[in-house]
Amino acid sequence: MPALAEGQVLVRLVYLSLDPTNRVWMNAADSYLPALKLGEVMRGGGIGVVEESRHPDFAAGDLVQGLLGWQHYAILPGPALTKLPKGLPVPATAFFGLLGHIGLTAYFGLLDICKPQPGETLVVSTAAGAVGSLVGQIGKIKGLRVVGLTGSDDKCRWIKSDLGYDAAINYKTENVRQALERHCPEGIDIYFDNVGGETLETVLDLINLRARISVCGMISQYNDGQHPAPGPRNLANLIMKRARMEGFLCTDYSNRAEEAFTAMIGWHLQGKLKYRVDVVQGLENTPQALGKLFDGTNTGKLIVQAGPEQG
Amino acid sequence: MPALAEGQVLVRLVYLSLDPTNRVWMNAADSYLPALKLGEVMRGGGIGVVEESRHPDFAAGDLVQGLLGWQHYAILPGPALTKLPKGLPVPATAFFGLLGHIGLTAYFGLLDICKPQPGETLVVSTAAGAVGSLVGQIGKIKGLRVVGLTGSDDKCRWIKSDLGYDAAINYKTENVRQALERHCPEGIDIYFDNVGGETLETVLDLINLRARISVCGMISQYNDGQHPAPGPRNLANLIMKRARMEGFLCTDYSNRAEEAFTAMIGWHLQGKLKYRVDVVQGLENTPQALGKLFDGTNTGKLIVQAGPEQG
Repeated sequence: MPALAEGQVLVRLVYLSLDPTNRVWMNAADSYLPALKLGEVMRGGGIGVVEESRHPDFAAGDLVQGLLGWQHYAILPGPALTKLPKGLPVPATAFFGLLGHIGLTAYFGLLDICKPQPGETLVVSTAAGAVGSLVGQIGKIKGLRVVGLTGSDDKCRWIKSDLGYDAAINYKTENVRQALERHCPEGIDIYFDNVGGETLETVLDLINLRARISVCGMISQYNDGQHPAPGPRNLANLIMKRARMEGFLCTDYSNRAEEAFTAMIGWHLQGKLKYRVDVVQGLENTPQALGKLFDGTNTGKLIVQAGPEQG
Repeated sequence: MPALAEGQVLVRLVYLSLDPTNRVWMNAADSYLPALKLGEVMRGGGIGVVEESRHPDFAAGDLVQGLLGWQHYAILPGPALTKLPKGLPVPATAFFGLLGHIGLTAYFGLLDICKPQPGETLVVSTAAGAVGSLVGQIGKIKGLRVVGLTGSDDKCRWIKSDLGYDAAINYKTENVRQALERHCPEGIDIYFDNVGGETLETVLDLINLRARISVCGMISQYNDGQHPAPGPRNLANLIMKRARMEGFLCTDYSNRAEEAFTAMIGWHLQGKLKYRVDVVQGLENTPQALGKLFDGTNTGKLIVQAGPEQG
């Protein structure tokens, strides 16, 4: 291990977050971050324990969060790390499953981008996923009719019976258009889009006047590399319905994190906002685990545990 | 001619407005207005002279505007008509070329939907068209760099030398992507979209952070009927750039017409806001004239004159 320079911190990885955006970073083109180069350590958000510090804000034993990468040890400048608050009534994995980037994405992507009004109908794609499952529950807290799209009957049961969705649609076995028409008898006011593609096209046919589409992800497109699938044929419905599609990234809301996390921890302690984590053991299993996001076999926020919390 | 019922007004058509939306109304599916049925008089906005009135707000000789249809005489209930203000320093055709629905569309579609800031770069498609030519000029009045896409070298010359566009691109003869990159060296902040399709996809590749796309029309899609072309493959750029696409209709802004028309008449009288009308003589030439909108041969707001202003 090289000696630390002034201001650097040595961190041992404990938890690694796996997210659809990992796949975006692997593309040849820059996105909201520069593209990874061949031979670079794979980028990834992680939680770790400080082993050694030459930065005054950090001391050995601190739990920290940052882009630690797919590696057991990272040396980073202090400002690239955030110390996790101590004494919160949630475990460390909640910083991936409930708070952190997942929480920011769900909270502001629904409330800030879409400004929901009680009684409106919200449709969520990847409704049982890490972000989607929070979005649906926040929708219920805000008085919306919430309809979720997910990929298995088990997930449908979970989001209806445990998370309180009004309806769940298995997009692999049901006719999505007919199911949406049946479960959204008054049309769709808000669509929280994690997938893009055909589902977006179907939803665009069913939106109400002044509908809002929060463009959070387009996972159906990411694995197509240089040749993503065509977009919806009915974008002109944005005109007919005076509707709005808006993209966002959770990093845009970092400065409002406290507002979101205070609300979400409160809802969680009241039993209104649940989350699941799917913890894969062993850093060596990371590449294979990432595939679960794209074949839909993860159940909850996907995390790799690389080592013990206490060293 | 049938006798008028109480509250009805008989109007003789003088000017008929031809617009891309006429084509939308002919589709089998409802849009923002019900679809026309076979055998119905073709819907169309017009200016006419009141010949006879049984409504207290209208008298013979009044110039009125409304959905008069493609016919020499219309009988309509009074509330379906708007009396044109008298004494304005513009001719009656200005209510199509500068004011009316064209003016509302350009003014609010740019200023309200996109909220431009001085120094930003605006791209306008159908930049020499009735709406586009106003949008580009209002963009210049608001201090933007304005780049227009249009379909002939003559139109390119007109929008640069007469209307003050910073750059004009002939999309039929130039490589649109390369030309946009050249003329928008700092990227695209605002896109006023009248066409959709491939142009939208190209623009989406070049948008800046927090870009706004005003979705006014998708004329490239209208003539495809049941099988419109696929949408852009790169909608995910809305996420990467935290950008917004928003549809609107001029009718949403009817209650703010005075604000727009006061500003636009002022700019027009100062020589900063020009408009052209392309007047086709004879109601019998209407169907053929409509085609000019789709092959790009109209020069300015397309109007059919069905009869004299003074009867």
